[in-house]
Amino acid sequence: MQNNKYISSDKCIDTRNNIIDSIDYILILCEELISYKGRTSGISLATTILDQYQKLNQDQKISFFVKINKKYTPDLSAISRDASIFLENNNLKNLNRLSVSIEGKRQELFRRMNMALGGSEILVSMRGDLLSFIGDYPELQELDNDLIHLFRSWFNPGFLKLRKIDWNTEASILEKFRNNEKVHSIKDLSDIKKRLQHHKEFYAYFHPAIKTEPIIFVEVAYTKGIGKSVQEIINRNTRSNILDFDSCMFYSINNCLIGLSRISLGNFLIKRVVQKIIIDKPNIKVFYTLSPLPGFTAWLLTNKGENIRTFVSKKDMKMMSFLFEGEGDYEKFDNKMKSVILRLCAIYLIEVKHNGKPINKVANFHLGNGALINDVFWNGDLSPNGIKSSFGIMVNYEYDLLRMDEYHELFFSKGKITVSKKVEKLIC
Amino acid sequence: MQNNKYISSDKCIDTRNNIIDSIDYILILCEELISYKGRTSGISLATTILDQYQKLNQDQKISFFVKINKKYTPDLSAISRDASIFLENNNLKNLNRLSVSIEGKRQELFRRMNMALGGSEILVSMRGDLLSFIGDYPELQELDNDLIHLFRSWFNPGFLKLRKIDWNTEASILEKFRNNEKVHSIKDLSDIKKRLQHHKEFYAYFHPAIKTEPIIFVEVAYTKGIGKSVQEIINRNTRSNILDFDSCMFYSINNCLIGLSRISLGNFLIKRVVQKIIIDKPNIKVFYTLSPLPGFTAWLLTNKGENIRTFVSKKDMKMMSFLFEGEGDYEKFDNKMKSVILRLCAIYLIEVKHNGKPINKVANFHLGNGALINDVFWNGDLSPNGIKSSFGIMVNYEYDLLRMDEYHELFFSKGKITVSKKVEKLIC
Amino acid sequence: MQNNKYISSDKCIDTRNNIIDSIDYILILCEELISYKGRTSGISLATTILDQYQKLNQDQKISFFVKINKKYTPDLSAISRDASIFLENNNLKNLNRLSVSIEGKRQELFRRMNMALGGSEILVSMRGDLLSFIGDYPELQELDNDLIHLFRSWFNPGFLKLRKIDWNTEASILEKFRNNEKVHSIKDLSDIKKRLQHHKEFYAYFHPAIKTEPIIFVEVAYTKGIGKSVQEIINRNTRSNILDFDSCMFYSINNCLIGLSRISLGNFLIKRVVQKIIIDKPNIKVFYTLSPLPGFTAWLLTNKGENIRTFVSKKDMKMMSFLFEGEGDYEKFDNKMKSVILRLCAIYLIEVKHNGKPINKVANFHLGNGALINDVFWNGDLSPNGIKSSFGIMVNYEYDLLRMDEYHELFFSKGKITVSKKVEKLIC
Amino acid sequence: MQNNKYISSDKCIDTRNNIIDSIDYILILCEELISYKGRTSGISLATTILDQYQKLNQDQKISFFVKINKKYTPDLSAISRDASIFLENNNLKNLNRLSVSIEGKRQELFRRMNMALGGSEILVSMRGDLLSFIGDYPELQELDNDLIHLFRSWFNPGFLKLRKIDWNTEASILEKFRNNEKVHSIKDLSDIKKRLQHHKEFYAYFHPAIKTEPIIFVEVAYTKGIGKSVQEIINRNTRSNILDFDSCMFYSINNCLIGLSRISLGNFLIKRVVQKIIIDKPNIKVFYTLSPLPGFTAWLLTNKGENIRTFVSKKDMKMMSFLFEGEGDYEKFDNKMKSVILRLCAIYLIEVKHNGKPINKVANFHLGNGALINDVFWNGDLSPNGIKSSFGIMVNYEYDLLRMDEYHELFFSKGKITVSKKVEKLIC
Repeated sequence: MQNNKYISSDKCIDTRNNIIDSIDYILILCEELISYKGRTSGISLATTILDQYQKLNQDQKISFFVKINKKYTPDLSAISRDASIFLENNNLKNLNRLSVSIEGKRQELFRRMNMALGGSEILVSMRGDLLSFIGDYPELQELDNDLIHLFRSWFNPGFLKLRKIDWNTEASILEKFRNNEKVHSIKDLSDIKKRLQHHKEFYAYFHPAIKTEPIIFVEVAYTKGIGKSVQEIINRNTRSNILDFDSCMFYSINNCLIGLSRISLGNFLIKRVVQKIIIDKPNIKVFYTLSPLPGFTAWLLTNKGENIRTFVSKKDMKMMSFLFEGEGDYEKFDNKMKSVILRLCAIYLIEVKHNGKPINKVANFHLGNGALINDVFWNGDLSPNGIKSSFGIMVNYEYDLLRMDEYHELFFSKGKITVSKKVEKLIC
Repeated sequence: MQNNKYISSDKCIDTRNNIIDSIDYILILCEELISYKGRTSGISLATTILDQYQKLNQDQKISFFVKINKKYTPDLSAISRDASIFLENNNLKNLNRLSVSIEGKRQELFRRMNMALGGSEILVSMRGDLLSFIGDYPELQELDNDLIHLFRSWFNPGFLKLRKIDWNTEASILEKFRNNEKVHSIKDLSDIKKRLQHHKEFYAYFHPAIKTEPIIFVEVAYTKGIGKSVQEIINRNTRSNILDFDSCMFYSINNCLIGLSRISLGNFLIKRVVQKIIIDKPNIKVFYTLSPLPGFTAWLLTNKGENIRTFVSKKDMKMMSFLFEGEGDYEKFDNKMKSVILRLCAIYLIEVKHNGKPINKVANFHLGNGALINDVFWNGDLSPNGIKSSFGIMVNYEYDLLRMDEYHELFFSKGKITVSKKVEKLIC
Repeated sequence: MQNNKYISSDKCIDTRNNIIDSIDYILILCEELISYKGRTSGISLATTILDQYQKLNQDQKISFFVKINKKYTPDLSAISRDASIFLENNNLKNLNRLSVSIEGKRQELFRRMNMALGGSEILVSMRGDLLSFIGDYPELQELDNDLIHLFRSWFNPGFLKLRKIDWNTEASILEKFRNNEKVHSIKDLSDIKKRLQHHKEFYAYFHPAIKTEPIIFVEVAYTKGIGKSVQEIINRNTRSNILDFDSCMFYSINNCLIGLSRISLGNFLIKRVVQKIIIDKPNIKVFYTLSPLPGFTAWLLTNKGENIRTFVSKKDMKMMSFLFEGEGDYEKFDNKMKSVILRLCAIYLIEVKHNGKPINKVANFHLGNGALINDVFWNGDLSPNGIKSSFGIMVNYEYDLLRMDEYHELFFSKGKITVSKKVEKLIC
Repeated sequence: MQNNKYISSDKCIDTRNNIIDSIDYILILCEELISYKGRTSGISLATTILDQYQKLNQDQKISFFVKINKKYTPDLSAISRDASIFLENNNLKNLNRLSVSIEGKRQELFRRMNMALGGSEILVSMRGDLLSFIGDYPELQELDNDLIHLFRSWFNPGFLKLRKIDWNTEASILEKFRNNEKVHSIKDLSDIKKRLQHHKEFYAYFHPAIKTEPIIFVEVAYTKGIGKSVQEIINRNTRSNILDFDSCMFYSINNCLIGLSRISLGNFLIKRVVQKIIIDKPNIKVFYTLSPLPGFTAWLLTNKGENIRTFVSKKDMKMMSFLFEGEGDYEKFDNKMKSVILRLCAIYLIEVKHNGKPINKVANFHLGNGALINDVFWNGDLSPNGIKSSFGIMVNYEYDLLRMDEYHELFFSKGKITVSKKVEKLIC
């Protein structure tokens, strides 16, 4: 844990005197905040700390995190001492003492920083900074574990507010959706209008203490039956009545705040939106996704097909050989090729696992939520990226309200992946 | 921790079969909530648990708490084992394992219960129930410690919203203030109007996830100089302009939610209100309280004056003897009597301590916030209760914005109580 | 129109110099407001005029209205001149000129006064003042006609907002309902709570420019079948679900603003509320009132029964004679008496008219809205006032959604009053 | 008024039967609305009429207006009769009767149409339609006069709400500003962001019954001293504090609703915004515009300079001759040319009048509001349009709060145009 080598703190003292000063200043304030002074002056101390933090440059921020992490880490010798005492006499008092030693002071420090007006928002962006440093400073992972623990408590779904987003939403909020849509990117703000009219809308979770920052959002379109092309639905210009539709497609779900990575809320958001739509629009009966299949092409092509060799006849391997040579010329795909690739797609989704779970992250997310794999669409996404990552295939997951708990249970307890008859047949 | 004796669970099974069932049902749901099932079905599981809880009767609630407390208590043998492992090899992995054993599952259980829509509110009232049982079931204190830990995190001042309360506030909210005013009680809703007009108002903290339940509120009146009678100010009927005033009196501060006892927020509320008033009404320069002095009479009269004997001359003791005989006839109070009692009052406030802190809780609260004792008012509260508890004396604490941090520091680090010259003189 | 005798303006000039000055000042401002100066300085001129008006005392207000009325009255000689010109040559230009002469400047003056921020509210209270003076200064009726014309345009139902009122409504608004409930009076604010819980609520019209002043409100209770006692329903303490009810009772409708007298909005309010309830609570199918019958006792007793003589046998007249002698001892009412009085009640409602319309104003209001007389309840209102005004009888009008337009049509075109079979039978 | 020739109503009946039917249907509904039926069924009648109207095509709308205009026009023979009666005996009763005849029923018809929920909004767009037909159907001007009369009453500044517009405003509202900015056009919604950040903002008037439709808006930028280029200010990217500025520039004012043409609200809006800024930002002391000068080039060039011949020496005329020949090559403009043209600009602004008022509409608007002409900026707007319409000159009007009422007065009573010393000098 001696990472001083990473930060030339000595040098800083010599040459960039004020830099170190500003960190020292924050550290002193943190020490006061965590002490009894936090009792009455907590709000103003926390406010100053967060103000100061925001003025730091990249290097200073690293230095701050490294120092905080070390200074307020649990004290191993104290823990050892209290563990011994507890082992001698395992009563409640000794347990509590051990418990306090183990927690250390980092969580409490951040809990108190949150007293500042607008503190939660800054703390989230602070964790965004922290995450960008962990690669180089792996010991900061400990600090992040503490933040994750705190944020799971604070960003509990019970505190979050679901908000329907439409063209009457504040422009500043819509802009944030535009900036964070990573699946089907949005050019400009006028482009977002297409996704908020003609029976399309977004739903987003907000934390009530951070009203200007959406946390996560899902894009929704109502359809008649199951739609097969996201682009077509985004561009549709229908004058239909909502009663003409019977299905709800989730076609994109994105986080807006890097600082909330690993605080998984997507599953709760989808469940909550389904709940709301069932009440608001009782004619909508089917809930499904049209999802990308990232990594499929890469998996298939690895080392000239080493992953697929066991599943494919020699003849078919030969037919596909031009793919391994990088001539991904899709005009050569005939029907036979299509059926081989779709079969491999089903195998990839259902049988290829890592630590007992589907290797494909999107599949893992939806199956973990209790969805089933309902269909795969050839030519579902013919954008360059779609072709490159998955030969243009998209996957249709369905959320069957009556059975999703059962599927979820099977998935977690027995690793069972539920698929439709149609997808099952692809494999045979 | 074998408290089965308190709950005749066997009997219950035999005679009131469904009663036990309903608790068993909740316990099964809790077990599912804490398992992987909580991942997708967390919201509905939590909702059902809280619904079921609210239907329980008193005895069932006790039974529920006792069982939960025991079932999810940290496992002492596991802790012992992990503590030994850590002592052998105190690396991070072993520390984390010990940490998980020590925390137990109670906090996580309640954190997940909070997923229910409206969950926070119910959890707060649940703790209200719990507190009422602890007297008879002291082992539940452990469970409460976990809840306190959670609630301190959730009801962090950084999350709370300050709201100015006036006659345009919702009647349902005003009713809650009426029900929870314990210092200067409010008869009916029309009576509350007096406190919200003519330059009087309330300020309250709300949690953004519980918009219908104020947490704590302070009653405020603007005055010209320092007011000496709360009743007079409540009843005043002035047509003044706010610019006619220069001071702000806090005359009552009350919690609204029993379930948030010991989550101290009063100090933050006062600081926050002062901050807001300084901005909104720059002509207000002085912030002070007119506070009760509960316990003073009792202290003075204990065992015919054993607490005061050392401070009072024999002659004065004799003069006061009729008080010890219960003939509290205040018409006999002459000026001399008044000066003796005021002197004792100052002594009581400044010198009588318990564990190094003022024995008077109100004094302890304001001094701990950094206030000073500015004055004591004879005949400040001539209500029967005022006379009974403090011979009608009220205390005037002042919040000196420029020096309160210093006073606070002195109070906590050196136990120094800051008093005005005027009060100082009373003692000499 | 020579009402100077009512206002001793000369005297005022002599003795109370400043009084006249303040009116003169307003009159000068009014003259500027109506001139081209109103173009840019209209807002500030209007604001000053309304401020000044509110400082006037009763006599000054009268003086102001009388002067304004006269000064801006249409100029009869100009009208005569323009009428002659039009008669000579009835082209559009001459028509417009005549039209301008006829309108005078009073409407435009008040239209411009409305430019002041918060002007609408003050103008309404100004008309409230005006109405109180018309009795003594009948020429002010002309001024009021202009205000009525303006207010009908401004308080058009299309501009009004319907608001559901419950216990979460601002206390200041609820207080206004309490102050204006004239049918079933409300003691204090806590008393109003009874009418806003257990499936009771109010609906009120607000003008969007006067958000703090409800205009008119109706009190609503949901019932199973047709309720027979208002008091019972107000005091009920049911834990029912809204789905247990099938009917909606309107039991009181009241104006809040005297200044909007004769701007009839009650009929629109009831229609609008019915529309809303049908959508929000589809299980509610029947809409009805439980209404008072003011004036029935007075009508029946007039001149020892001269109004009823033709409808009642001599024997029955004799039986009722004690009533005419003022010994209204209702314990003497036996069943026979009851049936005679109920028969007279039906006759009174259906056959006793003034200018072709029911003499009873409540009946006239509901029948004019398209309601039918469904039932009359003996002992419907046993309060002293109920007994005094209508022998305790209440009337049940029903709003039959499918047929109310037809009934309304019949009522207005043919004077037909629609009654249920049951009420019809009472007469025979 | 016999415009049947314009609408081949006979033909319509024969060939497009349903078309005529739909108009007939509306006319029947209008007749019912204006009758006693409007009393209870007014809301639903009005709703149906407005629904039906919106389904009409262009020709049908024309037909509807022409018929309504004629049907509910004041009855000339009745007016003549009532005028004669009044002339015989000019009492109040006869005056009222004449007044009713003169008003006709068109205003009342539209007043009742406004009962429909959302009616005001549709009526405004209805007038938008009407205005587009008046060119071909001049008799509809009468109908429009009635609508203007109504709208002046309804869209009284006292009813309007001022709203500050920033990047947190609903996207749907911002889109309307983009669509209606006619002075400095806005490309897309992202482009609007530039005008709402870095101390720039909009202010808009809304009618409280039409919350989704802004009526008129002004674009505002805070500056240090008087800014000379609108484009520069729009594009500025300053991190300044508001306290760094002392002036407020109004650089564009636009109506959003065609249907409110001639309901002049711009002057009230500017006054209201000034009032608000003075309170919100006390450091802002100077209020001014940077305004276009449309028509200046055209005036200068008319008939080879006939308008300017009297003001310019022969030598200068010769120097300018290339302009009249259409070779507007501005690179040939030397300083001498600039000073001649600026002098002509001052003359154009101050001395060239029509009906006693400045011929330039923008000047007429600001001078009429009480502004003075403070400066003219050579190269103020070098966009092609700026050069074409005014040789690139922009005009700076100042709103001097202390003296604007005086200037307004002088402008209206004596036709005096107030100009700064600097501009005065340009002429000499």
